[in-house]
Amino acid sequence: MYINDVPPLDMADDSLFEFLHMEIVSHVYKEHESRGENDKERGTCVSSLELMGFRVGQGLIERFTKDTPSFKDELDVMKFVCKDFWTNIYRKQIDNLRTNHQGTYVLQDNRFPLLTPLSNGKQYLEEAPKYLAFSCGLLRGALSNLGLESVVTAEVSLMPACKFQVVVQKI
Amino acid sequence: MYINDVPPLDMADDSLFEFLHMEIVSHVYKEHESRGENDKERGTCVSSLELMGFRVGQGLIERFTKDTPSFKDELDVMKFVCKDFWTNIYRKQIDNLRTNHQGTYVLQDNRFPLLTPLSNGKQYLEEAPKYLAFSCGLLRGALSNLGLESVVTAEVSLMPACKFQVVVQKI
Repeated sequence: MYINDVPPLDMADDSLFEFLHMEIVSHVYKEHESRGENDKERGTCVSSLELMGFRVGQGLIERFTKDTPSFKDELDVMKFVCKDFWTNIYRKQIDNLRTNHQGTYVLQDNRFPLLTPLSNGKQYLEEAPKYLAFSCGLLRGALSNLGLESVVTAEVSLMPACKFQVVVQKI
Repeated sequence: MYINDVPPLDMADDSLFEFLHMEIVSHVYKEHESRGENDKERGTCVSSLELMGFRVGQGLIERFTKDTPSFKDELDVMKFVCKDFWTNIYRKQIDNLRTNHQGTYVLQDNRFPLLTPLSNGKQYLEEAPKYLAFSCGLLRGALSNLGLESVVTAEVSLMPACKFQVVVQKI
């Protein structure tokens, strides 16, 4: 029996990434709990997620930029990441980009998709960092492959909005 | 500074899932190695990946089917999964669906996307199961949420083609 070739329904295909991301976060944290590690050692969960993000970011940006003309400067790279790269992953652009023109950039996302499942209530604020580590890594990996080594951190003040701070390392 | 709103390039957005999947597989296997477990215990890696797939499958199908009319029978569910569900995740349909009409289904994918990165050479054949566990879970989770409890296994004879066998459990 062959399946007929009616075109598929238009499904919410961004949810695959969201569900998978939730699973990874929960897997990494459960695994550390099962090792009986204490709170301090849970920092390794964040590192672990950040590193996975880093490698995914490197792989993706390589594919994404293979037909892209080269960038004229650092700011041009940042704009590409905020617009094209972000949209491809999160289905929306970074809402606001600021810079001090000395290598520090603040990328603000007013409705970050990986936080929306937990966006109600202040009690979840302390949970937020674990849902941001992977994305910090994604950014750092993408920038690294575009020639910018950086330190990326994230902060949340009112969910589901968040800010990613990128500090480019001058070598 | 605001980012202008030029529409993004059309990027290969299915690669996010592929890269993320590779990272998960490698994370799960590395973590077991670091625990010094032997080959037999590595079966837990497969279970771990299968269970992550199961939960993602459950979540996705719930979202995908919320506007779908109910299914008329088991075969109707299987066709939906082979066509709509599969396309949404892997950007292609299952190529061939067979059944014995007694609850066993064989879903053949002639070019399974999660195997294509390793498709050259027979030496990778033994690596294949670890790249199929998550997808077996996805299928089992989706079917479970549609009311069909099943056992799902996969086999590869010539990469990147593979077959998923679904045996529906009659309760």
